[in-house]
Amino acid sequence: MSKFTLALVAGCGAAAGAAATAAMYGGSRKQVQTPSIATTTTSMSSPSTTAPAPPAPVPASAIQAAIRQAPVDPSGLYQYGFPGPVSDLRPAASLVSAFDRRTRNPAWVAEHITPASVAMRDADRKYSVFVEDVSIPEKFRAKLKDYFRSGYDRGHQVPAADAKWSQEAMDDTFALSNMCPQVGEGFNRDYWAHFEDFCRRLTNNYPSVRIVTGPLYLPKREADGKWRVSYEVIGSPPNVSVPTHFYKVIYAEDGKIGGSVSLGAFVLPNAHISNDKPLTDFEVPVEAVER
Amino acid sequence: MSKFTLALVAGCGAAAGAAATAAMYGGSRKQVQTPSIATTTTSMSSPSTTAPAPPAPVPASAIQAAIRQAPVDPSGLYQYGFPGPVSDLRPAASLVSAFDRRTRNPAWVAEHITPASVAMRDADRKYSVFVEDVSIPEKFRAKLKDYFRSGYDRGHQVPAADAKWSQEAMDDTFALSNMCPQVGEGFNRDYWAHFEDFCRRLTNNYPSVRIVTGPLYLPKREADGKWRVSYEVIGSPPNVSVPTHFYKVIYAEDGKIGGSVSLGAFVLPNAHISNDKPLTDFEVPVEAVER
Repeated sequence: MSKFTLALVAGCGAAAGAAATAAMYGGSRKQVQTPSIATTTTSMSSPSTTAPAPPAPVPASAIQAAIRQAPVDPSGLYQYGFPGPVSDLRPAASLVSAFDRRTRNPAWVAEHITPASVAMRDADRKYSVFVEDVSIPEKFRAKLKDYFRSGYDRGHQVPAADAKWSQEAMDDTFALSNMCPQVGEGFNRDYWAHFEDFCRRLTNNYPSVRIVTGPLYLPKREADGKWRVSYEVIGSPPNVSVPTHFYKVIYAEDGKIGGSVSLGAFVLPNAHISNDKPLTDFEVPVEAVER
Repeated sequence: MSKFTLALVAGCGAAAGAAATAAMYGGSRKQVQTPSIATTTTSMSSPSTTAPAPPAPVPASAIQAAIRQAPVDPSGLYQYGFPGPVSDLRPAASLVSAFDRRTRNPAWVAEHITPASVAMRDADRKYSVFVEDVSIPEKFRAKLKDYFRSGYDRGHQVPAADAKWSQEAMDDTFALSNMCPQVGEGFNRDYWAHFEDFCRRLTNNYPSVRIVTGPLYLPKREADGKWRVSYEVIGSPPNVSVPTHFYKVIYAEDGKIGGSVSLGAFVLPNAHISNDKPLTDFEVPVEAVER
């Protein structure tokens, strides 16, 4: 029993069998709660900066008024730090990405390729090495040892071959925040690689192609009729989730100002896929990926 | 085959069997990509506003310089909108919370109780009704029909009984963004309810108590030695995830300026728990919940 429960149990007389002298697990608070904190965090909490104008059931001014009159101050919690989620947005020359600290995989990774960038040959993957992304706190980062002997490839989300325009750009794609555990044979080294090549060849017809890639953890209907999400977690302790599927959303732009864009979305299972299966079998409505 | 793949296949000659005239799924872009967009979105991407000062492997100025020199502009993606994740922070008088659009459950819900707030009796749950949280876009929201006949309770994360100080405050706790699917008998209506009562009684000894509550989706070691996360998803189509566990992190404050705070963390399985099991069996290090 920890000092904390000892203190609680002693104080509250909960039926946990112990009632010794209260021992406190104390620590100085970083910041003292004052009304001004509540005001600050309340303005922080407005979803309007990130969400696309959701319908407000109650005018914001009414919510603010109710919060001012409350006998409690829930947002005073922020004095201890913001509980998250944190996006870990990563800006790099060859990609932008967001990281999911729970699955320790990227949430999405976005790249941009053009006929010119694909034609450049200023990098070689033999000079790139896989690295942990030290911009993500150690506790939430995917680690090289998590992948070691896991049976899964460190699967690039933005392919190294899409960043041949500079060694540094290619190196950026080797951070583990651009990787997910992927089935190697029959997927990462085969069908998925062909799919990546298909995307690159889009630059033969489009002057500007954007690709967003990422993992999915999809539910499957089981024998009892219930839907379940089920996926392996690798590493010791178990850290990095093995996605059930991967998506790519492709924006093929015509390059004109005010021009048009062709959108396509694909979802592939993280599994051996026979090479004679047409890619069109995996096309889905863009809305399905959003969900 | 969609217009998009038709266009791609025609353009690229991919081995998908069709090569008709290219038909375009066109649409005007909302905003034209210009160098100034890249600058804006690059500054957006700085993680420093949300993450607690991560160690920077490369000086930010060097990253900025590399981005300026790049032949591509990955952050130009933001012209189509930000891919997320979005926190859906909800400020209310009785709670603050963040929502997880993937699982359609809250990520965390934080409340604040005091001896005075707990003593007030100005609300009755018979006047409160369960409502969908319309501040979350319809596509990502948990719905009343998802829970209907699912076999699970709509389990309050901030308990209704902690917000008896006003009917409006209690009503706030009935939004589905404060709910997770919980096992009813033996858990939500029994052990979990007793646990909530235990938390309320902490105000007998502490003048200010903060509680953060939320769902977990924990991996389990299977017969083959591998760890798997596995959970049910309810609704049709399957929408709302059924958490495997729930946590509470408790901050018991002594109410003094610069005073001390007792911290405790508990993780309980979303399952029938016998009432003779001591709560201390479920205490965990705070760090374990953070992970």
